[in-house]
Amino acid sequence: MSNVSGPVDPARLQDVLDGPWARVRYGHRAKLDARFLPVYGESGDEARERVTRLLTQLPTEFGMPSAYPPEYGGRSDVGGSIVATEMLAQVDLSLMVKAGVQWGLFGGAVLALGTRRHHDAHLRDIASGALLGCFAMTETGHGSDVQQLRTTCTYDPRTQTFDLHTPHEAARKDYIGNAARDGRMAVVFAQLITGGRRHGVHAWLVPIRNAQGDPPPGVTIGDAGPKGGLLGVDNGRLSFDHVRVPRDMLLDRYGQVTEDGTYSSPIESDSRRFFTMLGTLVRGRVSVGGAASAATKSALTIAVRYGDIRRQFGTPDADREVPLNDYLAHQRKLLPALATTYALHFAQAELVAALDEVHGGDGPLDEQRQRELESRAAGLKAAQTWHATRTIQMCREACGGAGYLAENRLPGLKADTDVFTTFEGDNTVLLQLVAKGLLTGYRDEFGSLDGWGRASFVAEQVRAMVLERTAARSLIERLVASVPGRDEEVAVTDRGWQLKIFEDREKHLLDGAVRRLRNGATVKKDQPFDIFNDVQDHVLKVAAAHVDRITLEAFVAGIENTADPAARALLSRVCDLYALSVIEADKGWFLEHGRFTPARSKAITAVVNGLLKELRPHLRTLVDAFAIPDSWLNCAVLREEAGRQETMAAHDAATS
Amino acid sequence: MSNVSGPVDPARLQDVLDGPWARVRYGHRAKLDARFLPVYGESGDEARERVTRLLTQLPTEFGMPSAYPPEYGGRSDVGGSIVATEMLAQVDLSLMVKAGVQWGLFGGAVLALGTRRHHDAHLRDIASGALLGCFAMTETGHGSDVQQLRTTCTYDPRTQTFDLHTPHEAARKDYIGNAARDGRMAVVFAQLITGGRRHGVHAWLVPIRNAQGDPPPGVTIGDAGPKGGLLGVDNGRLSFDHVRVPRDMLLDRYGQVTEDGTYSSPIESDSRRFFTMLGTLVRGRVSVGGAASAATKSALTIAVRYGDIRRQFGTPDADREVPLNDYLAHQRKLLPALATTYALHFAQAELVAALDEVHGGDGPLDEQRQRELESRAAGLKAAQTWHATRTIQMCREACGGAGYLAENRLPGLKADTDVFTTFEGDNTVLLQLVAKGLLTGYRDEFGSLDGWGRASFVAEQVRAMVLERTAARSLIERLVASVPGRDEEVAVTDRGWQLKIFEDREKHLLDGAVRRLRNGATVKKDQPFDIFNDVQDHVLKVAAAHVDRITLEAFVAGIENTADPAARALLSRVCDLYALSVIEADKGWFLEHGRFTPARSKAITAVVNGLLKELRPHLRTLVDAFAIPDSWLNCAVLREEAGRQETMAAHDAATS
Repeated sequence: MSNVSGPVDPARLQDVLDGPWARVRYGHRAKLDARFLPVYGESGDEARERVTRLLTQLPTEFGMPSAYPPEYGGRSDVGGSIVATEMLAQVDLSLMVKAGVQWGLFGGAVLALGTRRHHDAHLRDIASGALLGCFAMTETGHGSDVQQLRTTCTYDPRTQTFDLHTPHEAARKDYIGNAARDGRMAVVFAQLITGGRRHGVHAWLVPIRNAQGDPPPGVTIGDAGPKGGLLGVDNGRLSFDHVRVPRDMLLDRYGQVTEDGTYSSPIESDSRRFFTMLGTLVRGRVSVGGAASAATKSALTIAVRYGDIRRQFGTPDADREVPLNDYLAHQRKLLPALATTYALHFAQAELVAALDEVHGGDGPLDEQRQRELESRAAGLKAAQTWHATRTIQMCREACGGAGYLAENRLPGLKADTDVFTTFEGDNTVLLQLVAKGLLTGYRDEFGSLDGWGRASFVAEQVRAMVLERTAARSLIERLVASVPGRDEEVAVTDRGWQLKIFEDREKHLLDGAVRRLRNGATVKKDQPFDIFNDVQDHVLKVAAAHVDRITLEAFVAGIENTADPAARALLSRVCDLYALSVIEADKGWFLEHGRFTPARSKAITAVVNGLLKELRPHLRTLVDAFAIPDSWLNCAVLREEAGRQETMAAHDAATS
Repeated sequence: MSNVSGPVDPARLQDVLDGPWARVRYGHRAKLDARFLPVYGESGDEARERVTRLLTQLPTEFGMPSAYPPEYGGRSDVGGSIVATEMLAQVDLSLMVKAGVQWGLFGGAVLALGTRRHHDAHLRDIASGALLGCFAMTETGHGSDVQQLRTTCTYDPRTQTFDLHTPHEAARKDYIGNAARDGRMAVVFAQLITGGRRHGVHAWLVPIRNAQGDPPPGVTIGDAGPKGGLLGVDNGRLSFDHVRVPRDMLLDRYGQVTEDGTYSSPIESDSRRFFTMLGTLVRGRVSVGGAASAATKSALTIAVRYGDIRRQFGTPDADREVPLNDYLAHQRKLLPALATTYALHFAQAELVAALDEVHGGDGPLDEQRQRELESRAAGLKAAQTWHATRTIQMCREACGGAGYLAENRLPGLKADTDVFTTFEGDNTVLLQLVAKGLLTGYRDEFGSLDGWGRASFVAEQVRAMVLERTAARSLIERLVASVPGRDEEVAVTDRGWQLKIFEDREKHLLDGAVRRLRNGATVKKDQPFDIFNDVQDHVLKVAAAHVDRITLEAFVAGIENTADPAARALLSRVCDLYALSVIEADKGWFLEHGRFTPARSKAITAVVNGLLKELRPHLRTLVDAFAIPDSWLNCAVLREEAGRQETMAAHDAATS
């Protein structure tokens, strides 16, 4: 534990945060100018028109979508494309989501699920924005359990076409981005039926508008209407009344149908095939998690800068009123949230690097690593989006009435990011997925995990992820091993102790969940739903503890890779605050399980308050290191408040 | 502890919740029809136009504002006017806030701060809506510390007028409801200066628009522009450039200026006078707290009804997919929030009854009781509005993508209630006010509380509020006394034990805060800011624990007054869930302070999960008892989803 002596240059910290794709970040900071900023108070129609227009400028001006292969206009830069999305999210979340729908979901599905002829026919137009499209998976009746979609697509060998059909309203495609206004094609997910047999969910490329913008016969398009945010994205609904789809429009990488209707696939199990296809979603989840953190950084930058210039209440020992950031209660709101944002930044950066490695090469996907990515992406998407919702709300409140005015950006950040907690996978469902991965190593002890939703493929695949370390493995093991047996003698700022107690909590929770599931399986053999439902809260806590651990480990690894001593010292204190805030928030659990004494628990609170005091002078540095251009903040009160405070102080001095 | 046997008729529960102003509730449910519902997707201008039009219909159709004296069009029904506000909040929050600005803040200030000639001249027109007005207190630079407003109003005996002036932009009136579009007059708060002496903040009635809607010379009106919600309220900004205000426009109940400029007041201290004037705000805070809870009930009704009809994921042991409400994780989200909503309902009802008693009579205000009301209103406003923000967000997420569509109401509820946490008093500042009241009895031990903001009058006035019980005093004392000394032997569902542990936590926290302040005062004599700032988090926790206790006591009193045995039994279990959820959420504190053993702590979690199971069959009953008309919910998915699920089930059965 070393104190931070003197001010730290935010540029040193920024270098660490910008990481390997710094070039992408610099490029966007320089070029994403005022044209791209959200317009406050515009109507839904205006927002949609504006965002669509801007979208089509991104390929030429920013080289999006950079993840595509060079032959289709990209640079095969998977990591860079995620970082570009994070940058876009700091400017306008509608534009970021619209781009994600177009290039990530729609184009990504054509790329991942289609074969050469689909790529050659469409990817260039998709990349350039000449062909706008939709990813039509979610149905009104099935959002989380997409394996149970009700839309059918039935092959007819006589006409050599598929019959795409929406049997009832619950099977209608819903919430589909690009559908209400702009999309000309959609990748439509449906149950494939041929020769009277069902082969599970597959995807087809289906035209939904002609050049005049009218839907072809049998296609009905609806508008999801005004939403809680993201006004610039045209979410809509699609229904199909026995629409004929040519055989070659099946995206047939993972399942083919011959002219006579014979089905074949490189993957035998319908379920396993489907989850392999769903693997395409992993990039979307990594993008959404990163976008949530990017928006959180914008909100924190606004709230911290406001709290430095905004003053309220005088004290007998000062001439002027006190800046909000000097109040302990204000620091208690801002600093732990900021520390968590740093921790999640490092976890996200590590995830992006891993994604780039696994997806960036030319060879076939390493299945084990892909499964690990999926689990980590699910957990970090949940953690980052919930953190965003909580933190942006806190920042809005920390700016008082100013935080409620659209001109100060925070209402838009809040409204636009809100849906992130439930789209691209509902967070609770995603944490359950993480937990299933962790429990899989133990499944022999309590049987299949099918009692609890059907996402069993992941459970079959992911093995022994517990304590699989993601980064800085040897360093972390050395730190943990160096903690003496009698924990009470170790400072709570000892990194080894922090790592050990995070790891220990995860292990203990997992063991407990396994034990309870095993007992449940004995007592309630014929009630598989009850076996899992009785421990659902416990199991979700396992997943949350797991995500906490990989986040802390990523932070530790990030510090280890930081060369600049001043930046390193400051990050180390921020990491202390993150670790101790997590421990403090869950101190009930640690005390229940005898992990530390009541006296040590109280000491943690005192140390946290001490860290707040120590980090107070660096608050501004910590947000400046996010390097968000002033113009991107798009916040009136930051432009005006400092001048107002100075004028008032001068006036007060003159009249007193 | 008695289990609830069989279904409970929601009408029995509703009788309890409707309480003494049931007639007002029934009247509004019958008459607030579709005309009054929010319109989704309308523009800001449309919303303002619509809400203003509706506002002027309320006096004739609903007898608003019922709190006014009969001679000015009311019925002196203070409690009924708050309940009417709660009803309005379930229909449209913009309309509720607009009505609150017009009759509560603007008219309320004229009534409370003015004298007979102001009343006779204006109150009838204010009541009828013929004269729309503003409450111009907050300035750009001063929202929480309104004693430090910078607008001046200087008496000039030669012209016998006041000179109202905005010296700089930070002194501009900001966020003022009714200012941007509709207000013709404003009650303007400013520093009164006469004969070269300042006498603190007073209020004047000032015209801000003529009959043509134009501001008079010297008055500048701005628009606060689009906001995070409440689009139907025209918040604006007012600046005054040496505006001449006739002497008799001073609202002079608490301070008079004679023709020659001599100042006099029935209250000597500027500070004490100001806080007496601020007492007018208490009704606004009670209204906002009640409105927040009313909106929370709407959100919970939607989420619970959705969770009953929405199904997702199948299980091997069931034909159909599982309703969301059957999942433990979903129950863990909905039920504790619902139990807290019930608890806060009883606390709010008790507060409204007390307000009606203190303010309803003809005699002078009982100062001690008024101070108690102010403290309780502050605490419950903070608790109810934070609970609303958290719970509405949770409900939005619990409805997945549907929760993000405007047509399903939740985005509007969320956006409109958001500002409640910081307006009519910032919640953190309000909790500090509560804490100061609690600490006052001890102030001899550490000196004045002025080191910590200037709201010292309240601190001077409120005495010995700790353990002053608000309701069912003898019952609660009997229950607490009956708990045997060895707590561990008592069931965690024992009401006496729950009450005792709530009370004990508050006492212990308060004692600790006093001790720390006393030590601080010894060590840091010359740093009054630091003395208080070092313990700010502790002191806020005292206030929160205090609010928890009065809330639990109100719930217990409410159950005691419930005659129907089935309703009583169900409420008793809901009260258990409330009490144990609060304890569970703060179990770290209880364990740190040896209030129960780790084993008992784990038992509490098990009992909470048992309560969720027990209350699951009553979920729908618990929201039906809120008796919110279906049309008020204004939620498309509730109208449509059940039918979709049935059609899908029939189709599945036919095709399987």
